[in-house]
Amino acid sequence: MRAVVLKEFNSSLLTVEDIPTPELKRGQVLVKLAAAPVNPSDLIFLRNQYGVKKEPPVVPGFEGSGAVVASNAGLYGRWLVGKRVACRAPEDGNGTWAEYMATDSKSVVPLLRGVTLEQGASLLVNPLTAWALLSMARKEHHHGFVQTAAASALGQMIERLARRWQMVSINIVRRREQVELLKKNGAVHVLDSSATGFEEQLHVLSERHKIRLAFDAVGGDLTSRVASAMPKGSKVVVYGALAGENCQMSPLSLIFEDKKLEGFWLSDWIKKIGFLRKLKMATGAQKLLATDLATHVQARFPLEKIQDAIALYKEKRIVGKVLLIPTPLASSSIYQ
Amino acid sequence: MRAVVLKEFNSSLLTVEDIPTPELKRGQVLVKLAAAPVNPSDLIFLRNQYGVKKEPPVVPGFEGSGAVVASNAGLYGRWLVGKRVACRAPEDGNGTWAEYMATDSKSVVPLLRGVTLEQGASLLVNPLTAWALLSMARKEHHHGFVQTAAASALGQMIERLARRWQMVSINIVRRREQVELLKKNGAVHVLDSSATGFEEQLHVLSERHKIRLAFDAVGGDLTSRVASAMPKGSKVVVYGALAGENCQMSPLSLIFEDKKLEGFWLSDWIKKIGFLRKLKMATGAQKLLATDLATHVQARFPLEKIQDAIALYKEKRIVGKVLLIPTPLASSSIYQ
Repeated sequence: MRAVVLKEFNSSLLTVEDIPTPELKRGQVLVKLAAAPVNPSDLIFLRNQYGVKKEPPVVPGFEGSGAVVASNAGLYGRWLVGKRVACRAPEDGNGTWAEYMATDSKSVVPLLRGVTLEQGASLLVNPLTAWALLSMARKEHHHGFVQTAAASALGQMIERLARRWQMVSINIVRRREQVELLKKNGAVHVLDSSATGFEEQLHVLSERHKIRLAFDAVGGDLTSRVASAMPKGSKVVVYGALAGENCQMSPLSLIFEDKKLEGFWLSDWIKKIGFLRKLKMATGAQKLLATDLATHVQARFPLEKIQDAIALYKEKRIVGKVLLIPTPLASSSIYQ
Repeated sequence: MRAVVLKEFNSSLLTVEDIPTPELKRGQVLVKLAAAPVNPSDLIFLRNQYGVKKEPPVVPGFEGSGAVVASNAGLYGRWLVGKRVACRAPEDGNGTWAEYMATDSKSVVPLLRGVTLEQGASLLVNPLTAWALLSMARKEHHHGFVQTAAASALGQMIERLARRWQMVSINIVRRREQVELLKKNGAVHVLDSSATGFEEQLHVLSERHKIRLAFDAVGGDLTSRVASAMPKGSKVVVYGALAGENCQMSPLSLIFEDKKLEGFWLSDWIKKIGFLRKLKMATGAQKLLATDLATHVQARFPLEKIQDAIALYKEKRIVGKVLLIPTPLASSSIYQ
């Protein structure tokens, strides 16, 4: 089969090669891949900074969609054969940027009728992250939250899902035009961190709505600006690192205002909740893939064009997902 | 009475004046002060960065010792009259840098026979902080911890108390000569953060001893260096800000390694534990004031010399406490 192979941890060393189609270990199913996105976590993996280490040579790609074509995995695995699915890569093996992937049957979720393979390819990272963050907030009795990077694809999902779940979201963006964009799309509270008076506005809004939780995907000094403006006892949960810099926190606000900083990693969270709840969550999220949790696809590339795909993805003002298409959809009847 | 008065939040605007001796509100006792230290928290207060805001003009000073000379506070308050005590300033009024202070009777602890007023003057901040941090660690089932600023007066108390309580401490200092000092005093694990290979040594030691808690009084990038070197799931508790810079944390270590950052403030902690446990803790700590929790006094100043006291305290290589002596001990029989 054709596959993107990372030879060493350095994204310029990606090649496209013929490698053996994977053999199934106990508990695994074989997915013929239809589409796989390039996500921020993939770029972190290519730099060898991801939370799960895999030794090169290895096929990257954490998520994708396709059809299950073989199983070595008991009842659930056999039931999956022939079904259209979303899938995650195994923790210790090759990923989704290839024609086929062997993965644990519990990392595979059947797609609902009406959900396209392109939509399904981006189900298990962004939509589930939005769902998981808000579930966690509700479980800890937060009726709302502040979020940074609110204009990102995931930030907008979080904002829309919050409205559906009747939670208050205070959305922080980095440019004035993004304020207009989010308000046009229905967001109520949108603040521009580059504007004068940002901290004071955030302070007033978060105090008024008694909001003590923030989701931060940026880092750098924005983390401390947000944390310091929020009420005593507030917690910042970091789930991304877009600034590429260490998160800062004022020691005096940690000490005197009981502020807290922690992280969120979907893989860790999902392990804790168990398989049935994960399936239920994935089903709930799928029903919103055409609306609140929709992903806009900006461009599609065959595997051979992986360098172009990554170059486009790294451009600053990208407005949608970049998808790899290992197997052209029209060419295969198994995806019907 | 004579008192140091802060006119505005700027330490150069301290004056020494005659002001009225305080009148007692319900619940308060009057302490004739014998000694009061200059602590890091006082300097933070003078810069208007402390967790409790008081409006100038105000008398600074968070702790001290003396004798209770009057009470308007029920049984416990009446029992205190005539006793030698350690005391904390009220949250909303004048502090210990004066001849007299009115404070809540529950902010006053009788001194044990054998504890001097000079020792008692520094009971309620440093020794109780050491006691509280280690109590918190034990309550959360940590059998050991990493600490920064281990060569500070408080750091050394923490190290000695840990040995007494049979907890493992990994002590981080900033200069090579401090390694020798701490080892000479009996510390087992001492690392120099300015030495080559510091992170690797900390990583190996903290993994070997399975230590997932750090106390940080420095901040800046040392916070992230310590946190990143420690095992998955580790928590850093910040209780000081000696670097005068924001604490840094790597977002990837928050996300992928479940690292956490929070703060510790003795005043908040003491409110939670209740008065009887506080008394018990203060009694336990007093028994160690001559040994593990001893404070070395470097210099004594009358109130009139407050500017000299603060200037000396701000010098970098100070090795002991600076005490203000509102009432010369020999001049008053009430302290006997």
